[in-house]
Amino acid sequence: MIQITVIQIDNYGPWTVTPNPRRENDLQALQSRLYEDLNLMFGMYGGLVFYTRFDNLIAITNGISLEVHKKIQESVRNRYPFTISMAIASAETPYEAQKLATKTLQEYGSAQDSNRREVLDVANELVNGYVQIAHIDINNVTGTFTDVYSAYDTYLKVNEVKLLLMKEFLKYEALLFFIGGDNFMAPSNGMNEEDYIKIFDNINKKLNLDLKAGVGIGKSAEEAANLADIGLEEIRGKRVDKNICILKNDKFFKEVLRKGKSCGL
Amino acid sequence: MIQITVIQIDNYGPWTVTPNPRRENDLQALQSRLYEDLNLMFGMYGGLVFYTRFDNLIAITNGISLEVHKKIQESVRNRYPFTISMAIASAETPYEAQKLATKTLQEYGSAQDSNRREVLDVANELVNGYVQIAHIDINNVTGTFTDVYSAYDTYLKVNEVKLLLMKEFLKYEALLFFIGGDNFMAPSNGMNEEDYIKIFDNINKKLNLDLKAGVGIGKSAEEAANLADIGLEEIRGKRVDKNICILKNDKFFKEVLRKGKSCGL
Amino acid sequence: MIQITVIQIDNYGPWTVTPNPRRENDLQALQSRLYEDLNLMFGMYGGLVFYTRFDNLIAITNGISLEVHKKIQESVRNRYPFTISMAIASAETPYEAQKLATKTLQEYGSAQDSNRREVLDVANELVNGYVQIAHIDINNVTGTFTDVYSAYDTYLKVNEVKLLLMKEFLKYEALLFFIGGDNFMAPSNGMNEEDYIKIFDNINKKLNLDLKAGVGIGKSAEEAANLADIGLEEIRGKRVDKNICILKNDKFFKEVLRKGKSCGL
Amino acid sequence: MIQITVIQIDNYGPWTVTPNPRRENDLQALQSRLYEDLNLMFGMYGGLVFYTRFDNLIAITNGISLEVHKKIQESVRNRYPFTISMAIASAETPYEAQKLATKTLQEYGSAQDSNRREVLDVANELVNGYVQIAHIDINNVTGTFTDVYSAYDTYLKVNEVKLLLMKEFLKYEALLFFIGGDNFMAPSNGMNEEDYIKIFDNINKKLNLDLKAGVGIGKSAEEAANLADIGLEEIRGKRVDKNICILKNDKFFKEVLRKGKSCGL
Repeated sequence: MIQITVIQIDNYGPWTVTPNPRRENDLQALQSRLYEDLNLMFGMYGGLVFYTRFDNLIAITNGISLEVHKKIQESVRNRYPFTISMAIASAETPYEAQKLATKTLQEYGSAQDSNRREVLDVANELVNGYVQIAHIDINNVTGTFTDVYSAYDTYLKVNEVKLLLMKEFLKYEALLFFIGGDNFMAPSNGMNEEDYIKIFDNINKKLNLDLKAGVGIGKSAEEAANLADIGLEEIRGKRVDKNICILKNDKFFKEVLRKGKSCGL
Repeated sequence: MIQITVIQIDNYGPWTVTPNPRRENDLQALQSRLYEDLNLMFGMYGGLVFYTRFDNLIAITNGISLEVHKKIQESVRNRYPFTISMAIASAETPYEAQKLATKTLQEYGSAQDSNRREVLDVANELVNGYVQIAHIDINNVTGTFTDVYSAYDTYLKVNEVKLLLMKEFLKYEALLFFIGGDNFMAPSNGMNEEDYIKIFDNINKKLNLDLKAGVGIGKSAEEAANLADIGLEEIRGKRVDKNICILKNDKFFKEVLRKGKSCGL
Repeated sequence: MIQITVIQIDNYGPWTVTPNPRRENDLQALQSRLYEDLNLMFGMYGGLVFYTRFDNLIAITNGISLEVHKKIQESVRNRYPFTISMAIASAETPYEAQKLATKTLQEYGSAQDSNRREVLDVANELVNGYVQIAHIDINNVTGTFTDVYSAYDTYLKVNEVKLLLMKEFLKYEALLFFIGGDNFMAPSNGMNEEDYIKIFDNINKKLNLDLKAGVGIGKSAEEAANLADIGLEEIRGKRVDKNICILKNDKFFKEVLRKGKSCGL
Repeated sequence: MIQITVIQIDNYGPWTVTPNPRRENDLQALQSRLYEDLNLMFGMYGGLVFYTRFDNLIAITNGISLEVHKKIQESVRNRYPFTISMAIASAETPYEAQKLATKTLQEYGSAQDSNRREVLDVANELVNGYVQIAHIDINNVTGTFTDVYSAYDTYLKVNEVKLLLMKEFLKYEALLFFIGGDNFMAPSNGMNEEDYIKIFDNINKKLNLDLKAGVGIGKSAEEAANLADIGLEEIRGKRVDKNICILKNDKFFKEVLRKGKSCGL
């Protein structure tokens, strides 16, 4: 079971243009600061936040209590010109969890309902469960894109990869987020090595580029992401002979699982 | 002529995994903080920065001197664990300007060359020129998506729109960036009303949703973005009977241009 | 027992002038950002940080584990151009605790020893214990100072009060920090109502102004500070007939202690 | 003539306790963020901000227009849960300038008048003028204090030095601010070498420690602070045989003035 929190700035759209449109630099600074802050605060308890649409964010929050959520909500109220609402849900897959969480939020009213403020609710139950995250990157993006094509062309290519990945992962009820550079993170509980390989094959056929992924399985988003990073380093360091390296936290699962015995840790 | 600055964190990829992969929360916080800071600093001189790939950012910098760029570069060096390189270029179209800027940067070495640090160069010339920005949003996204579909489904839809918009705008050598919610900004010097309408028609046919745009033309990114915002408000307030409202800064162009006399200012 | 963490930027002085003196704006921005970040991060676990000398900070960290300290230390390393060292100690009084912590830090080498990096050590033991904090302000500072005297004269007066308070509190092995406006916080485990009154009388005789304080006793700095705030509000709201209101957390101490039955909660 | 801006958070005190006292961590984070932001924004135009009481700040703003002030005021409104008021004044001495600025602010109403919001006014006139700043530090503070005494004892000593310096400088209508570590900055237009020496002698007699200062004279706070830093490095590097080194910007004053020919630049 993965636990997902859907975070939404309350009545944000109307605020950005009241009484007049606010300066875009300020809005961008404000939104990125919120994203930063949420990552620092949730991160203190092992959570990980994705910026998504900036006014609607998705966080992996396994093991994080309602009380911690409440403190974060209060901290935003105390330091920002707006408030946030949050709904938490758990499910077998990330897609299902965020869907349940969104539904709970929607039941309280519209995102632009000025009376709906600081919702904090749980769709079903808080869980410890586990988190599976794939950290994906494009092979040799610096040599083949960044140093060769224009900044925008590379950016466009990364966006093509991103959208295709989103659609492919969705088939497995997994989510996919861009985390900068040529890197993506896919919360993907329940997927196995073959699933990832199939996705990368499809991308390769359509876009003619190679992807690789470290996959981490841990009791928190932080742990899973960290293991995924280590797996990716294994591949980059050519200590693995394929493009996937799945690592589990042995304290948690009572084993170090090296899929295909290929991850050379 | 639009002036574009391409910003690149020096040798960032290797740094993120040295000596071990750094905690993802920290990297996300760091990247979004840089984006925020750059927007605040360039914004003090009317510039506007887009986060693009977070380690490679694109800014509109008409009227901003090399000296100001240098101060910003130094401020990043003084406050971050890394440095940044920047190249500036001007051209008739945003695409061409960023291409020239990227080329200049690439001539100094790879983004992952540890000897290439704090490049600051100008591809051709610094200009005042003018900036044209379209601020685009999706009609009634809150009612038809945010309040109805799951957070991730809405996010996916927004990404579909984004990629299509990127490809459409590129035909006109214009750029397209996501700025949060259901909002996009397209630096699009040289495009006219019909061009925008054609793009929106194409999107409508493919994705069955309606877009609208305020377009601002000013002497800085800030001014253009502000006029674009006002234009968008004109459409939202139904004071315009179409989906495009182009506004020029009269002090700059010695006129308030109301395309088709439709923008009710 | 109060737990104190002494935080020190490693080799900061030399860094600020290498290779040339760094821009003062950047240093001020950097230092205040660190202070902010540390407060957000320690705050997620009930800690409270005082800016002290900005390159040397003092935090109350009852109940905060070595692991959390380590994560914060790592987060600073990942996002700042410098690293920090930390030593933790517990004692009956705040002064004694910070003294033990400092001593531990000093044993690792000079603050300006370039080889001493990222010390993290515990002088004696980590404790839960309890925290007693007085939140002190100057009666009617807005009416008698801010709105009457110049900004700097008021500032000078506040600094006079501060230094006197520091010396007075030190007699009880308590610490005293300025927290903005006309507000001070004194970690002051072990002091009783009469002690505070005596201090305020001394200040009154010397500076001819009246002080008041809410005092909170809780299991964390956050809880103590919150109770102190509530106590201060009780006095401000004239629901208490003296200038001191001490509140204890009943869940922790199994009682609500209302000193002199004067705190009208 | 030095130009000073007095900045005040509107009605901040009441806000911090409405409807209940807000979490101290959040307030500290918020205040230090504001200080950081103001330094970054004013700094883009050569200004320098001192945190003073955090809710009342003093900035040196020579050469900074009303328009830039307005943009900063607006940026705070767009990103913070409160607004700020500002008054600007110029005078021969920093003390006089801040006094005039404060008076202008006070004429608009109390700092805690909920109807007084976003004042922005000029007491007399905006000037370019010049800024004189002394950057003072304590000789060998690391060896004699930081590495020997407890963190709090050193902090107390620094506060003693600070208060004495404030009082001494006030005799010359100069201001004095703590900027971290053992460093102080004194905006001190009009003072000469002998004045500084006299102050340091007085401090030495009372506190038995030695001070030194680089003094910079430039057309902006940034330039003056930078020259002061360089002067201080000259003394630290023993390229000067006294404890004062005054440097003027030659482009501005058409000369490099080396007081007593001692500053080895």
